[in-house]
Amino acid sequence: MAGTVLRRVLRRELRSVCLGVRSMASEAGSPTYQYETLKVTTPGEHVLHVELNRPEKRNAMNRSFWSEMVLCFRAIAEDPVCRAVVISGAGKMFTSGIDLMDLGSDFLQPGDSDAARIAWDLRRKVTRYQESFSVIEKCPKPVIAAVHGGCIGGGVDLVSACDIRYCTQDAWFQVKEVDLGLAADVGTLQRLPRIIGSKSLVNELALTARKMLSDEAHSSGLVSRVLPDKAALLLAAFDLAAEIASKSPIAVQGTKVNLVYSQNHSVQESLDYMACWNMSMLQSEDVLKSAQAALERKPLKDITFSKL
Amino acid sequence: MAGTVLRRVLRRELRSVCLGVRSMASEAGSPTYQYETLKVTTPGEHVLHVELNRPEKRNAMNRSFWSEMVLCFRAIAEDPVCRAVVISGAGKMFTSGIDLMDLGSDFLQPGDSDAARIAWDLRRKVTRYQESFSVIEKCPKPVIAAVHGGCIGGGVDLVSACDIRYCTQDAWFQVKEVDLGLAADVGTLQRLPRIIGSKSLVNELALTARKMLSDEAHSSGLVSRVLPDKAALLLAAFDLAAEIASKSPIAVQGTKVNLVYSQNHSVQESLDYMACWNMSMLQSEDVLKSAQAALERKPLKDITFSKL
Amino acid sequence: MAGTVLRRVLRRELRSVCLGVRSMASEAGSPTYQYETLKVTTPGEHVLHVELNRPEKRNAMNRSFWSEMVLCFRAIAEDPVCRAVVISGAGKMFTSGIDLMDLGSDFLQPGDSDAARIAWDLRRKVTRYQESFSVIEKCPKPVIAAVHGGCIGGGVDLVSACDIRYCTQDAWFQVKEVDLGLAADVGTLQRLPRIIGSKSLVNELALTARKMLSDEAHSSGLVSRVLPDKAALLLAAFDLAAEIASKSPIAVQGTKVNLVYSQNHSVQESLDYMACWNMSMLQSEDVLKSAQAALERKPLKDITFSKL
Amino acid sequence: MAGTVLRRVLRRELRSVCLGVRSMASEAGSPTYQYETLKVTTPGEHVLHVELNRPEKRNAMNRSFWSEMVLCFRAIAEDPVCRAVVISGAGKMFTSGIDLMDLGSDFLQPGDSDAARIAWDLRRKVTRYQESFSVIEKCPKPVIAAVHGGCIGGGVDLVSACDIRYCTQDAWFQVKEVDLGLAADVGTLQRLPRIIGSKSLVNELALTARKMLSDEAHSSGLVSRVLPDKAALLLAAFDLAAEIASKSPIAVQGTKVNLVYSQNHSVQESLDYMACWNMSMLQSEDVLKSAQAALERKPLKDITFSKL
Amino acid sequence: MAGTVLRRVLRRELRSVCLGVRSMASEAGSPTYQYETLKVTTPGEHVLHVELNRPEKRNAMNRSFWSEMVLCFRAIAEDPVCRAVVISGAGKMFTSGIDLMDLGSDFLQPGDSDAARIAWDLRRKVTRYQESFSVIEKCPKPVIAAVHGGCIGGGVDLVSACDIRYCTQDAWFQVKEVDLGLAADVGTLQRLPRIIGSKSLVNELALTARKMLSDEAHSSGLVSRVLPDKAALLLAAFDLAAEIASKSPIAVQGTKVNLVYSQNHSVQESLDYMACWNMSMLQSEDVLKSAQAALERKPLKDITFSKL
Amino acid sequence: MAGTVLRRVLRRELRSVCLGVRSMASEAGSPTYQYETLKVTTPGEHVLHVELNRPEKRNAMNRSFWSEMVLCFRAIAEDPVCRAVVISGAGKMFTSGIDLMDLGSDFLQPGDSDAARIAWDLRRKVTRYQESFSVIEKCPKPVIAAVHGGCIGGGVDLVSACDIRYCTQDAWFQVKEVDLGLAADVGTLQRLPRIIGSKSLVNELALTARKMLSDEAHSSGLVSRVLPDKAALLLAAFDLAAEIASKSPIAVQGTKVNLVYSQNHSVQESLDYMACWNMSMLQSEDVLKSAQAALERKPLKDITFSKL
Repeated sequence: MAGTVLRRVLRRELRSVCLGVRSMASEAGSPTYQYETLKVTTPGEHVLHVELNRPEKRNAMNRSFWSEMVLCFRAIAEDPVCRAVVISGAGKMFTSGIDLMDLGSDFLQPGDSDAARIAWDLRRKVTRYQESFSVIEKCPKPVIAAVHGGCIGGGVDLVSACDIRYCTQDAWFQVKEVDLGLAADVGTLQRLPRIIGSKSLVNELALTARKMLSDEAHSSGLVSRVLPDKAALLLAAFDLAAEIASKSPIAVQGTKVNLVYSQNHSVQESLDYMACWNMSMLQSEDVLKSAQAALERKPLKDITFSKL
Repeated sequence: MAGTVLRRVLRRELRSVCLGVRSMASEAGSPTYQYETLKVTTPGEHVLHVELNRPEKRNAMNRSFWSEMVLCFRAIAEDPVCRAVVISGAGKMFTSGIDLMDLGSDFLQPGDSDAARIAWDLRRKVTRYQESFSVIEKCPKPVIAAVHGGCIGGGVDLVSACDIRYCTQDAWFQVKEVDLGLAADVGTLQRLPRIIGSKSLVNELALTARKMLSDEAHSSGLVSRVLPDKAALLLAAFDLAAEIASKSPIAVQGTKVNLVYSQNHSVQESLDYMACWNMSMLQSEDVLKSAQAALERKPLKDITFSKL
Repeated sequence: MAGTVLRRVLRRELRSVCLGVRSMASEAGSPTYQYETLKVTTPGEHVLHVELNRPEKRNAMNRSFWSEMVLCFRAIAEDPVCRAVVISGAGKMFTSGIDLMDLGSDFLQPGDSDAARIAWDLRRKVTRYQESFSVIEKCPKPVIAAVHGGCIGGGVDLVSACDIRYCTQDAWFQVKEVDLGLAADVGTLQRLPRIIGSKSLVNELALTARKMLSDEAHSSGLVSRVLPDKAALLLAAFDLAAEIASKSPIAVQGTKVNLVYSQNHSVQESLDYMACWNMSMLQSEDVLKSAQAALERKPLKDITFSKL
Repeated sequence: MAGTVLRRVLRRELRSVCLGVRSMASEAGSPTYQYETLKVTTPGEHVLHVELNRPEKRNAMNRSFWSEMVLCFRAIAEDPVCRAVVISGAGKMFTSGIDLMDLGSDFLQPGDSDAARIAWDLRRKVTRYQESFSVIEKCPKPVIAAVHGGCIGGGVDLVSACDIRYCTQDAWFQVKEVDLGLAADVGTLQRLPRIIGSKSLVNELALTARKMLSDEAHSSGLVSRVLPDKAALLLAAFDLAAEIASKSPIAVQGTKVNLVYSQNHSVQESLDYMACWNMSMLQSEDVLKSAQAALERKPLKDITFSKL
Repeated sequence: MAGTVLRRVLRRELRSVCLGVRSMASEAGSPTYQYETLKVTTPGEHVLHVELNRPEKRNAMNRSFWSEMVLCFRAIAEDPVCRAVVISGAGKMFTSGIDLMDLGSDFLQPGDSDAARIAWDLRRKVTRYQESFSVIEKCPKPVIAAVHGGCIGGGVDLVSACDIRYCTQDAWFQVKEVDLGLAADVGTLQRLPRIIGSKSLVNELALTARKMLSDEAHSSGLVSRVLPDKAALLLAAFDLAAEIASKSPIAVQGTKVNLVYSQNHSVQESLDYMACWNMSMLQSEDVLKSAQAALERKPLKDITFSKL
Repeated sequence: MAGTVLRRVLRRELRSVCLGVRSMASEAGSPTYQYETLKVTTPGEHVLHVELNRPEKRNAMNRSFWSEMVLCFRAIAEDPVCRAVVISGAGKMFTSGIDLMDLGSDFLQPGDSDAARIAWDLRRKVTRYQESFSVIEKCPKPVIAAVHGGCIGGGVDLVSACDIRYCTQDAWFQVKEVDLGLAADVGTLQRLPRIIGSKSLVNELALTARKMLSDEAHSSGLVSRVLPDKAALLLAAFDLAAEIASKSPIAVQGTKVNLVYSQNHSVQESLDYMACWNMSMLQSEDVLKSAQAALERKPLKDITFSKL
């Protein structure tokens, strides 16, 4: 009986699909981004600005921060309006890194006396903390880090997971962890060697915890541009984001997904994945719209691409 | 000012840790497992029984099922009491696989006319569906599939993600997807070739969608034991689970984690990971307790291992 | 000027695409398959039968054979009509393996006295010979090996690259290379351990060159079915091919591509690739046609799927 | 009977090999390189100059180009005389990238209305286009890209597959694809991150499609030398090619093969492959010749190495 | 001055090489194998028999054993006479596994109170213990395990690293570690899933520590032959070893090296490595000798292959 | 009987462990480092200085050198006192690379006339030579290369395996191998592309054997600092080593191990390994000591970390 109903319902649906009668997509707008440690604003169309927002604590990364990062970037990943993100720090610096209060209460809080069970718990926590920055990489929208002042410890882990890095003249970077008696475990050791050309420099930074100033950050390729001050920095970052946001989101986000993929696979595997990816993506109307704009010499800003 | 307070608080904490003054771990018991499509019971100490529980629909996998699987197995993964899981189907069969109503409403519901945007959405959905079974593999507690009657389509994907498979004489398995015009995308094509020794057989099953009866399932190694009927099946599965649950959870769950790891890495990489893993795990009190039991010829059931 | 024309032409084309005015696909039928060492026939709709066709030489693999295999299976891969392939040997046995005349004239023919230059040349040749069987794996259409009598040396390399293996009671398999003073370099050592469950047996076969009879071939999983004689074998293979050919080619060939992929990648990588693959493939009309047939309980043989 | 003849023939051959009676290698010279879109000349001994040769179309990559690249570089790979290659563009610029006429007629030409079948066809095409540049990487002879003027879109994909890049002061590079609504799928996203040290810069270039001028190309490491104008560029490239061509081809081509290998494998895997490679290559007479030249302080140009 | 001498000496050497004046290889015979826990004998030409030789301790693996295994198999690897190895246990059983006295004194001996430093030390030890069995895999000569009676814990790790396994009717296997509170860390979890076709069975064995008797060991593919008793077992193992030893060592050992390689790499990578390997190996005189024997229908036992 | 004793002994030991009665760790000091070709001194606490010490031969790498490197760095790896290493060359230059006398006597000494057996021997030798530099990478203590004057051939292989590279103004680097008729097989081709950002430059260096002066070495990222002369160079290297040696060895060596790991694995695999690593390492007292020092603003030099 149920089978008959099922069949009838499905058949109806199949038919409507075949006829091409397609209902409107749910007009879901951007979610509201409300967090304790992050401030999210919209500096321009399709662009989000995420600020580390505990300026009075030098944007130290506390417990809320670690979980809000996940919530925030998962929401951004699904936000059909957003096409590019700028991340910066409120107040005097980008971030002083992990909040030692948290370190104390989360990692040092003993709940067990068996080394293996403490270990089990630590693995769970480290894995969860790693996710707080991996969400940036998994988010298909390009994320631009705009760094001013200090970018310390966890801050380097964070910006390592971003796609593009700009900074101010007064910015400095410090892989701090070795000074705290531990190896950087939420991304720096894993991503920095893929970001900076000189491995000698990466090793030196990670093994000595010395500060790297903006010039060296630029010449080494960690950042691709240095701006005089924070105002100029944000302006440049917003411009860059706007430029990216003006293009087809299918093209931009497909580019990010494949850049991340090829960082972890051989050239041949990456080419295979790309070919598989473009089986569907080259069928996009965005290709036609973009090609037409190119032929008519119209700027992409004048083209309306559907949400993604 | 804040800095001084911080320092004082942290110092206190550090000291208490050094002194070995360790507070009791929160005595978190098992969570309550309440779902629409899954029924979770406790057939024995440290053992959970998860039943696919839509017998009137032949346990077809509907939308709730897909998300409840994730909730359920994430909870089990964190449940300090549970040490082994049996998964079976309520009613006449294990499962008839994906619920076509869902297929209709989730995959066929058109919300867009751009092939690329439909593709984007499909990838998101397939990835989410894959997660519904990958959670079984990610859960460190061993999961035993107890199959009776039909195990069709998504059912094969599901049991492929389990650690051990038992079935009844009347059980049969069917990689159904090719008959629906698609390639099995939630685990069968990825895991079955690693589970069954004969690749010729795996390919035949996947390319023809023919039924495989219990003898062939046994001789091919898909299941490691065939029981006469459902009652005997569940008894055997619970016994097996109880046996596993009697052992050190550090040992058992470490074994599962490393078996899963070595399935995806070279022998040398797996040995390296194992050595890294046992840096902490060999420090467990469970090793001492287990060794002592062995020396004193006491059964492990008489030993109390701490929760994990 | 040219630019203007270009733009005009392209614009016209873009428009016609947008309007959905789609010209008919070129009605390319099957190519004609004419070879010296291979005989290709059509035992049923959408099915090709490739016979090793030098029965008077026990189907020894000579120089022509190695290059015709590549031509033949590249053509099959592109043949929009063909949906499944059976490969067998004409005459008394499947194949006696590499033709020693060729070995003599191709590998032993000295053209150089520098060990490095001879080496360079050997690598080129071995790579080319490997391709002669890799084309079977790269061809998205399922290939069924139907083996009778001896399957020696290169024959084992060949059938290892096929998807499904059936054989007669009198069939036997021999990894012969070690008896010729060399390690099997065109696929056996690389594929056999993934095809047979028992590594102890694989090693024994490869290190001793002993014959394996049909029972052991079956119980070890090398073949998935043993038939009494050649006539029954071909009948069974054609039936299997016809069964496969009756299904959606999108589903069948996507299944093969992903089975091959997952043999060489981790479970997670294979799931990712699969999700990428199904971005486009789940949009197929074949899914609708197949689902509808399932609902209406019509056999798939009665459905017409478009060519692929 | 035939067996007896075979045996006799082979035995004769074996004996002659054992006696070291070695016939002269076929004195195959360079093939003739005749193409529509490529012009191949010989600026010096053992050096080939491949010019993109549609200056009136700014060397736009049309359909012929894509297939001629494969033919040309496969021929070069087998050419025993050639030891180094320079690739440059005829006329005012290196290349304007993909020819939109081709894009129109090849990718947009609709032949099917099923999204899955269009996808299948697109994958085939993209894969074939990828091969047009992968042949450069697979060719064991070093390929030097000499870039003047614009190097746009497909041009960046092309030079990314070359081994060394030089350019003129007026050269500029543009990863154009994102402006056409697609992700670069024939090599840029896969190879550029391995070529340039700064990932921030790579991402910026790929996501914005902005032009990169010659200074930045140099400081970022994309090119290893900047020359004042095209004449000086070609001179420098030919000099470099001649320098490379003066050395042992066994050494040079083995170096390229292993550099490409290590780009896609771990350090340990690459060391293992290298050890395997040098099993034969260290037996080369070229090692003796080169060592002797070093001892006698003779320039390598005065040594004659056999063809390869 | 020194330079001149050097040049003269080298030149002389180079000349002698070019002239083909080759001195005799040092006629190094087999080393003497003298160990405390292992007994090494020569049951036949080119065959070594390694016995676990602490029968009064049921061949429990003590500290000497772990280091002697490394010494023994490194020596065998370099022994130019040895071409095949049989490993068995003296006395009543194959081995009872790790010696708990060792466990006590090596792993439990506390030398530090810092969990991290204990961990560091444990990693070193586990890595060293892993090497004790990995040497079997790294040794290019085939190793046949001949198991009678119990094969427990470390015994399973050991035989998993062998190439071929035979056993007696009374043999049984037990993955014991989970009963000792730990995960098997010297090879079982890493190699067993690649040796046995049924993953369900592997997981069951590792998670329950249940005994597996000889029939199941055979039907599951762990052993490829079951013999009635120890005498018959050794006879069969020696015959097998003699058979292997009669063939070209270049062929046999190249086959083992490539089987091990392909177990850890993709099919394509393994084919590439094989092609690289055979650049030199196909130049062997063994190919000619073997081919000639085949043509003349002479048994390989009558051919003399040079040492390796 | 023995069983009873065993049990008693073990029980006693277990008890003492449980009671926390921990004996003092063996106070093993540094080993004495006495070599022919290497001079090892202690320029500061916890720092070792390894000098290539055949200045009269321009530190050419002779047979003793290759084996002493292995001995020396294996000893350093186990030396609980040493926390950082500086490697430099005695006399006028860093090293002239491989000693041609060795090349003559080791590689050219013919012991066999079979190309395959020569090959087998060459592979063994190359693998052993590779190990001479891989030990640097495997040693968990950071190794700083301090280069003055020429660093030729094998010298580049050596410094490529170090963690950080400093040099003098007059230093130059030369990948010499191609001029000797061979491909660099002990590390340069495998590691250099991961060390220098510009692949175009790496390829140029390896294919032309041209000298690279100190400025280019710096701007390309091969070295991270250039000092005016050898005295300043050593001072800077020792300072750097001292700085590193002042920090927690758990933190520093864990950092090196994970940097090396992530160079050969995907980001996700590296994060997983890191989480596994820190299961035990975050339990270190060094974390508490370091954190406390940070809070009290004490320099790390004033903290005593236990040996490792």
